[in-house]
Formats: sequence, C-alpha cells, structure tokens
Amino acid sequence: MIANPITWPDGARCAVAMTWDMDADSAFNWYNQNTADNLVAAQSWTRYDPLIAIPRLVDQFARRDLHLTFFVPGWVIEKYPAQIDLLLKNGHEIALHGYLHERSNEIDKDDELYWLGRGLEAYRKHVGAGPRGWRAPSFAFSKHSLRYLLDAGFEYDSSLMGDDIPYALKEGNASLLEFPVDWTLDDFPHYAHNRDLGYRMPISSPQRAMEVFRSEFDAAWEFGALWISVWHPALSGRLARFRAVLELLDYMRAKGGVWFARLDQVCDHVQKLMAGGRWTPRCETMPLYQSPLPEFSKDHRGAGTHGTTGSAHC
Amino acid sequence: MIANPITWPDGARCAVAMTWDMDADSAFNWYNQNTADNLVAAQSWTRYDPLIAIPRLVDQFARRDLHLTFFVPGWVIEKYPAQIDLLLKNGHEIALHGYLHERSNEIDKDDELYWLGRGLEAYRKHVGAGPRGWRAPSFAFSKHSLRYLLDAGFEYDSSLMGDDIPYALKEGNASLLEFPVDWTLDDFPHYAHNRDLGYRMPISSPQRAMEVFRSEFDAAWEFGALWISVWHPALSGRLARFRAVLELLDYMRAKGGVWFARLDQVCDHVQKLMAGGRWTPRCETMPLYQSPLPEFSKDHRGAGTHGTTGSAHC
Amino acid sequence: MIANPITWPDGARCAVAMTWDMDADSAFNWYNQNTADNLVAAQSWTRYDPLIAIPRLVDQFARRDLHLTFFVPGWVIEKYPAQIDLLLKNGHEIALHGYLHERSNEIDKDDELYWLGRGLEAYRKHVGAGPRGWRAPSFAFSKHSLRYLLDAGFEYDSSLMGDDIPYALKEGNASLLEFPVDWTLDDFPHYAHNRDLGYRMPISSPQRAMEVFRSEFDAAWEFGALWISVWHPALSGRLARFRAVLELLDYMRAKGGVWFARLDQVCDHVQKLMAGGRWTPRCETMPLYQSPLPEFSKDHRGAGTHGTTGSAHC
Amino acid sequence: MIANPITWPDGARCAVAMTWDMDADSAFNWYNQNTADNLVAAQSWTRYDPLIAIPRLVDQFARRDLHLTFFVPGWVIEKYPAQIDLLLKNGHEIALHGYLHERSNEIDKDDELYWLGRGLEAYRKHVGAGPRGWRAPSFAFSKHSLRYLLDAGFEYDSSLMGDDIPYALKEGNASLLEFPVDWTLDDFPHYAHNRDLGYRMPISSPQRAMEVFRSEFDAAWEFGALWISVWHPALSGRLARFRAVLELLDYMRAKGGVWFARLDQVCDHVQKLMAGGRWTPRCETMPLYQSPLPEFSKDHRGAGTHGTTGSAHC
Repeated sequence: MIANPITWPDGARCAVAMTWDMDADSAFNWYNQNTADNLVAAQSWTRYDPLIAIPRLVDQFARRDLHLTFFVPGWVIEKYPAQIDLLLKNGHEIALHGYLHERSNEIDKDDELYWLGRGLEAYRKHVGAGPRGWRAPSFAFSKHSLRYLLDAGFEYDSSLMGDDIPYALKEGNASLLEFPVDWTLDDFPHYAHNRDLGYRMPISSPQRAMEVFRSEFDAAWEFGALWISVWHPALSGRLARFRAVLELLDYMRAKGGVWFARLDQVCDHVQKLMAGGRWTPRCETMPLYQSPLPEFSKDHRGAGTHGTTGSAHC
Repeated sequence: MIANPITWPDGARCAVAMTWDMDADSAFNWYNQNTADNLVAAQSWTRYDPLIAIPRLVDQFARRDLHLTFFVPGWVIEKYPAQIDLLLKNGHEIALHGYLHERSNEIDKDDELYWLGRGLEAYRKHVGAGPRGWRAPSFAFSKHSLRYLLDAGFEYDSSLMGDDIPYALKEGNASLLEFPVDWTLDDFPHYAHNRDLGYRMPISSPQRAMEVFRSEFDAAWEFGALWISVWHPALSGRLARFRAVLELLDYMRAKGGVWFARLDQVCDHVQKLMAGGRWTPRCETMPLYQSPLPEFSKDHRGAGTHGTTGSAHC
Repeated sequence: MIANPITWPDGARCAVAMTWDMDADSAFNWYNQNTADNLVAAQSWTRYDPLIAIPRLVDQFARRDLHLTFFVPGWVIEKYPAQIDLLLKNGHEIALHGYLHERSNEIDKDDELYWLGRGLEAYRKHVGAGPRGWRAPSFAFSKHSLRYLLDAGFEYDSSLMGDDIPYALKEGNASLLEFPVDWTLDDFPHYAHNRDLGYRMPISSPQRAMEVFRSEFDAAWEFGALWISVWHPALSGRLARFRAVLELLDYMRAKGGVWFARLDQVCDHVQKLMAGGRWTPRCETMPLYQSPLPEFSKDHRGAGTHGTTGSAHC
Repeated sequence: MIANPITWPDGARCAVAMTWDMDADSAFNWYNQNTADNLVAAQSWTRYDPLIAIPRLVDQFARRDLHLTFFVPGWVIEKYPAQIDLLLKNGHEIALHGYLHERSNEIDKDDELYWLGRGLEAYRKHVGAGPRGWRAPSFAFSKHSLRYLLDAGFEYDSSLMGDDIPYALKEGNASLLEFPVDWTLDDFPHYAHNRDLGYRMPISSPQRAMEVFRSEFDAAWEFGALWISVWHPALSGRLARFRAVLELLDYMRAKGGVWFARLDQVCDHVQKLMAGGRWTPRCETMPLYQSPLPEFSKDHRGAGTHGTTGSAHC
C-alpha cells in the first residue's frame, strides 16, 4: 500500500507523532483583527488552551513518559512563557507556528517574511537556538514559504498533505523534510463549533471522533505509515475529549509495535536513514506553480502550447 | 486533570447544573429585525418553547424534585408572565439573559447598557429584587459587559468558556463568579436546523446527542467538574429529545454522587467556600484587551515593542 | 407530557401521517430562476421524484394498503398529470403546496395571492373541487397566508411548528386546523447534498436517519402525539432509503396501536371530536405580529411602553 | 421497486461500477483560478491523487483482477501521463472528465465547446481513439452538453441523477446512454474538509461512510440496480479509507451475484440488450428547458397559457 516503505526504529510497525497546535488566542485574533477585543467568550475559549489544557497535558503525558511536539506561534511564546517553560522542562519539542497565526498565502511575500522574522525572534529569545520544525498556521503555506524556511535553517515542515510517510521538498539545491498531515487527523472538523471562529461543525462525541483517528492509526500500523495528529488544546484538551485521547494512547500501546516520537526525533531518524543510504525519500521540487495557470488566459488559447508547469519530481 | 480542584456539597463527585435558555421568540426577532413579522413558521417554532415545552419541563422536573436555572430575556418575562410564575412557583431560578436577546458585542456600549437596563427593569417588575446571574445572549459578552454586570450587582455570570470549574472575573476592585459553559453542551450544534434561524446542522438523533452530553458528564463526574448544559426548550424540550433528557437524568442519578443544583446554589456554595478560606478560585482580570492588537498596525512594526496586553491573572 | 391530550380512533396510541412533498422540479426552479434551464444534473435529480419514485411509492403503499397525503404544487400537477392520477386512483390525498414552490414570505402579498390562485386553478382543473389542506412551500408561511387560506376554504394547514398535536389558527372569526411539523422529521437535514440546491449536508445512512425518525415515532407513540413526516420522493424515495422507510413502517405496525392516516382523515377526526365537544384544540390568534417589533426603533425608546404585540391565544 | 427492470450478465443480481474521478489538481485550479499557485497545501493534497493513490489503487485492483473506469480531465492526462499508462496497462478504462475540470454550466457555450475540444485532443493524443464515456466535471452538465457529446461520438454519459438503472438521453435523432449517479455515492459529502476547496464537511470515519455506500449496494443487489461510486483518489484512496473500500469489495464478493464492470462494459451490455430487442431503456428528450421558465416573467401572467416546457419522454 506504500510504494516507498520506510523503516522505523526497533522494528516498529509505524510512527505516531501526536502533535498539538498551541494557538491560544493568536488564530482568533488573526481572523478577527478588528473585533477580537470585544469577543470575550471567544477569548476565554481560546485561552482555555494555555491556562487549563496545557498544564493538564503536560501532567498526563509526564505520567506516561511521552514527549511530544507542540507547534507554537511566536506571539504565544511571548504571552505565555511559563507554559513554554513547562513544556520544555517536560521534554516536549517546541516547533514554530508563525508569529500571530498569520495566513501566509493571503498576505504579500514581504509581510510573510516579516512575520516569520518576528516568530523566529520570539522563539530564539525564549527557547534558545532556532526551531527545527515549522507548521504553517492554517496550513497556509505559500509559494514563497519553502524558500524562507530553507533560508532560516528549518529542517522539517509539517503543513503539507502529499503522502503517508515523510518526503522531501526541494527548491534550488536545498531541501527539507516534509512530515505530512491531513484534515482527517485535525480535530476542528470533529469538534469546532463557535460562531466567533467562523466554524460551525456538528460536534461529535469523543467516541465518534476517535473512530476516525483510530481508523487512521490502524491503517498506519498495518501499512507502516507516519500518523500525525493536528490537535488543539482548547478542543481536544477538554476533560471528556482528553480522556478519550488517553484511551487512544492506551489502545496504541496495547497494540504494540508503535514508535511514539516527537517530530524532531522523526527528523533525526529519517536523516540518519538517508545518510546511511538506507532510504531515500520521494522528493518534490517546489514551487509547483510560479503563477496562475496560463490555460485560463484567453490569449493563451491561440498559442497551441499546453504548457506544463515544471516537473514535480526532483 | 483539574489543577485547582473544588469540593462539592456532601462529598459529591461533581455538580450538575442543567440550565435552560428560555429564548422564546426573542433571539429570532433580534436576528431578523426587519423580517421576523413575516416568518410565521419560525415564530411558531420559537413559541413552542414557552407554550408547550415550559409547562412540560416544569411538570416533569417537579415529579423528580429538581430545581433548575432558566436564563430568560426581559422581553420574554414581559410576554410570557404566566410561564415565569410557573417556573418560580416550582422552585426554579430565573436568571437574566438580556432584554431582546441582543448581541452585546455587536452594538455600541451605550446600547448595551440601554438593553441591560430594560432587562433589569423587566426582571425586577415581575420577579422582584434583582437577578443574581447573567448569561450573555448568544454568548456575546463584550469588553464592557463585566463592568456593567458588576455595577448592576450580579453575583455570577455563565457565558464564558475558560475552565471546567468556577472561576472569578475581576475588574478594578470588584469581581464576580464565572460558571463556564462550552458549545459542546449547547443543543444547537446537535439539533438546530432552520433556514430562518440561519442554522442548518445535520440533526442528530437524541441518542447521538446524548453520547456527547453524557461523555461530558462522565468526565465531570470522574474529575470533579461543574457540568452546565445550555439547552433550549424549543429544541431539547420536544418529546423525543426530552425523553432522552429524562433518561440522562436517570443515568446521572443511578451513577450517584452528583450534586444537582441551580446556579444560584452553586454561587452560594462557592461563596461559602471562599469565605471560609477553603477554596480560592482562579481569577482573570478583565478586560483582556482594550483595543485590537497593536501588532496589526503597520506603524507599530518599527517600535520594537511586542506589547503584551495586560496580565490575565489577578 | 402533552398538556391537552387528544384521543385517536379505535383507541390508537398515536397517529402517523407519513406525508410527502412532491416538489418535482418546482422548488429547484424557484430557487434558480435564471439558471435552472442550464443545471441539467439538478433537473434530472429533481425529476427522479415524479418519474421514478412516485410509481414506486404508489406500488409499495398499495401492497400495504396505505393511503397517504402528498403535498403537490400546482405547476407539478400540470406537468405530471399521469402521476397525479396514479396517486388519486390509489386513494392518496393530494393537498396543495403552492404553484411553483414560491416562498410566500419573500414576495409581496399580491404576488402571494397570485400564486395561490394559480395553484388553486391547477388543482381544481385536474383534481376537482378544492384542496382541503395546504403546506407552505419551504414552510414560508407569511403573515398574510392564513387570511388567504381561510378565504379559499382550506380546512387545515401543515406548515407550522408550534405543537406535537393538532391546534387551531384563528384570524377574525374564522379558523382552520394546524397539523404541526418540524425540521426533525424532514429528510433534507439528513440526506440533502447538492450544490445546485444550495444544500450540503453530510449524508446520513438510512439507518442513522431512521434513528431520528424512529425516536420521534417512539415518543409520539408513548405520549399520544401526531407524527408527520415531511419527506421528498427524490430523497427518501431512492432504493436504499425507501427500503428503510418500509422497514420503519414494519416497525410501527409491529409495535401496534398506531392510526395510519391521511391528513384529511386526521382533519375529519378532529372536526368530529370538536363537534361532539369531546376535545378542544389549543387556539392561536394570528397574525402574531403586524410589523417588525417597535422595540427596535430608537424613537420607541423614550415612549416607555413595552408594547406587547397582541395576545397569542384565542 | 424498479419499473423497467434490466438483466445483467450471467444472471447477476446487480451491476457494480466502482468509478473514480481522477481530478488531481485540475478542479482545485478551476475553482481557484487566481490563487491556486499560492495554495501549496491544497496543491499537495490534490496531488496525493496521482502520485500516491493511483499506484496504490492500480496495485490493489490488479491483485483482485478488477478493471474499473477512471474519469480523467484532459489536462490531467497531459500532466500525469505515466499514471494514465499505468491505468491503461492494467485494463482500466479512461473516460473523459473535461479538460481543466471546467464547470460547463457556468461558462458560455463556446467556451464549453473549446474546453471539450481540448479534452478530446489530450485524450486522443495520449490514449488513442476517442473516449466512449463522459462525466461532466462537478456534474455541471449544461443544456448544450448533450448536443456536443453526441457530435463528438460519445456513447455514454455518467453525470445525471434521474434513475437507478441505465436510461437514454435523446436530442433530435441521436441518443446516448446515461449511467446515473447520485451525491450519495460520492465521497465528498462524507470526507471533504478543506478550506481551500470550499468544503467543510464533518469527516466521517470510513466505517460510517461505508454504512452509506453499503446500504446503497444492498438495495442495488436486492432490486437489480446499477451501483456507481463517484470516488476521488485523494479522499477514498487514503490508507484507512481505501482499506475500507477493499473490505466493501470483499463484502460484495462474499454476497455473490454481483457483476463488477467498467462502464464501457456496461455500455456494451446495454447496447447488446437493445440490439437484441431484449430491453428498451427509458428515454428522456433533451434539453428539458430552452430558457428560464416563462412563469417567472410578469408579462407572462396575462397570457393565460401555463406553457409546459416540452415533453420529457421520447
């Protein structure tokens, strides 16, 4: 089922990276720039994340000796430094998630770079050194993002959706690893209902949502994939849902053969495989398109060229 | 799982406040100010609440000796006085829910105060004394709301979403208690489908909806939280759904160790714990923001200050 | 659970009126007046109703000796006369459902009357005599509708949502019976997904949808209510769903004590109860509002009158 | 349940055509003509289809000796020729699905013809000969489409939704076969959640989605219908979902009496039945409407003609 199978440490059948996007009130502010100060219930809802859920997650994962990756915007690092310290002290990875949860593909490229700089500055000031990993806020990876990430020294990204296992993104002579996600393993489609967030999904019970996450895990386990959740403390960190998360962890452990890892550990593992010549990732040359498709321009019609837009493979 | 655990009376494991928002036709009128007079099916749907469901609820809860909190807009008190009397006579608490289900964070602050005054006037005229509790219609709590509520002498609010147990909201030297809710325990995401209400959710069976409410209860029971439903008589008071509500009550009672309470009773309990120095609520200083984030202003960029916006804790 | 209980013939515990809205391509044309001619897939989807589903329903209900009410727009009567004849010949009731599935509360009152006239003309020409019953297309009953229906001699309406059992609508000295519906027993929230219809619900399996319909039936059976489905042949008449409908019928029959009836038979029954003084329906005086609420007018604020808008009861 | 029953080869009880729409990044580009170059996560998501899912599907179907129909836009044929070769070599049918997934009923008729020409050119250049079958991208079949398809020599279409078994579409003296679909057997309503695609459905687990697909199959099996899925490799080709697809195939095989076929084989079969006089399809004369309904024109009202818009049957 997987064309280019990868091996996991100690013969594990699959890798599980239970990652969390600790957005706190950043995304909500980005999407409501002129009104967020007046949306007090939504403020409180978004701050359940750092104030209530993060200490809970840290405590429970410590009891299970689990070390996970948290994607955090720079502004959140600045606003909630104690929580960042708590995460770091407990062996969790802090990866970068923009500065103010900016949608990079809806702003111009200079602004994208500006916010990236702010995010890096906040990260370095508090966490030290630079982040190894990036997830584009709202998955809004732009055609400029890869270049910026390579220039900033990122080693991996986890925003794209093109595979079930790690692959590589290349631009010019440089490349980084992509640890792909999918909306299926995001918790928003299952739980998010809040007028001020512009999301009104029917709210699943934790049991129904876990059916989805567990079926993805079972398939990853059977076929050797990398399972990456994109969960939000304000949603999946609530009592009933988090209890179901812990039960899913029990289920995974009982099944056995699972490598639980932070994404920086996945990165180390893949880099080592590559250095040893034991595995080569599929590689995509970016950007795929430099501009909108010429086929949509009426002028283009006479030209008779059905211009393909660059090879997609390295 | 809960960082600042609270004790409940008689050693109960959790508190259950099954609260109802008796909106009748107020919210529907607010959201359709120019057309509501012509939306007759929606009128009839919203009036199922006072005319059919409220007497049913009163009767069934009386048989079970249950006393609950109903949040009612002032305009509804004026329009349906017999129902208010029936609720009061049966030991239910009437708390205030605006005047015409106004969205306070979408109107200016003078208008917010105007409607609050109308609500208080209606409440005092019919119920006597002032209300102890408030829930912002549509959870649309504004940055001015807390000040207004403190000035009006409210002792608790139940509109915000920042915790699993009571906490405190402070502005200046005054504070009140917050009994937090969440969309998960609202019935709109599970049942509301009505073009004229601007809601088109897939409609869950009562069994599926109860999976959600019960899983939240089971977690509250396990971890000692305060479970607060936000139900609407026109939705959850229909025959099939209300039968499921009664079954959920049976389930809760059979499980045991549950303190069923009105929110004014929860308020009394928490105030007593605090007065006795036996428990201190987490406290949030409000408002969190006085204006939109300065980070979004391009002028701000040169300033080099990453202005945090005030401490969030008391 | 029901404040004003009604008795059903032969001591039945509840009444089941499985009604169908045979919209064919009328509603789709109304909602897409300028583009419907070019939406060929949606045309075909809407015509599954008269061309495929109606003969199927007629055949299957004949085998079960069931006689049901079909609400049909006048334009559909004109376009599909053979199907109307088939329904009539098999003992089904044809009630009126507008002319072109017009939304009466979004057009002016003269237009509403014009379309009603067209509907009546089409009905009388093909069916003979006038219809006894009406369902407003899209439940879009306007504040003028009751007056028009009374003038036209209708004996019942089935568009409003204010109760679980029949009630009466009164304007001036005249009144008719209301057989109330609810979106819960409509099949659109469960099955409708079609971009051209402006509906994109997640599609339930027949089993999940039947959970909803059956739970409403079980409650109607337990408490003595009138269960009325609002189903559409293009949705619930498809093979898999219709098989589930037939299984629901089997379930109802096996449970026993169910009076299966057309709405004209329900009308006869209620009229007889009333004439014999054995039951009096709850009565609502209409229209509830003559205009938008005066509370929304700023001029109104000084007036100090909290004008209630007329009594709602007869 | 089926008025005009058809027989299937070897006495099979039903026909199953598990068809896939291999859109790759075409539809996404069509719907985001000005921004698609900057929506990199959506690009990666759409390219999971050709790069990951298609080889997986080909491999797994080869193991099961299954030969299916893939609907592919011409632009996708040009961009992913290796995948097309792989499909062809494994005995799958390539049918045409537009050029750039254009919505034919939202562009003018000359543009529709232009894109059709581009699609045919791409098809013939790579696949050889012309395609026998067509599915309108987004089911956006226009009132001109049938004429164009007949002129281009198509033998069947699979875009409309008017029956459970094959039927015929006739315009003038020419006709082709229609193999009808329905949104119920599309995977978008069950799985699609992606802001950049403008779709935000709650995501079902594979088990829940299969309940829907299987219930449709069970009904097709019981009543002799033609079951046609409209699945997308980027959705249903993911690991967990595709495993459920394979389980559904096992279920179908275990049940027995199923004719698994490509749509060109269904076409051959039906043509043979017709040539032998053993079965006559229901026939619809097209287009149903030449223009918007005259009933909506106020001028029309005085005319007294309730113009029906042409016969719908041949």
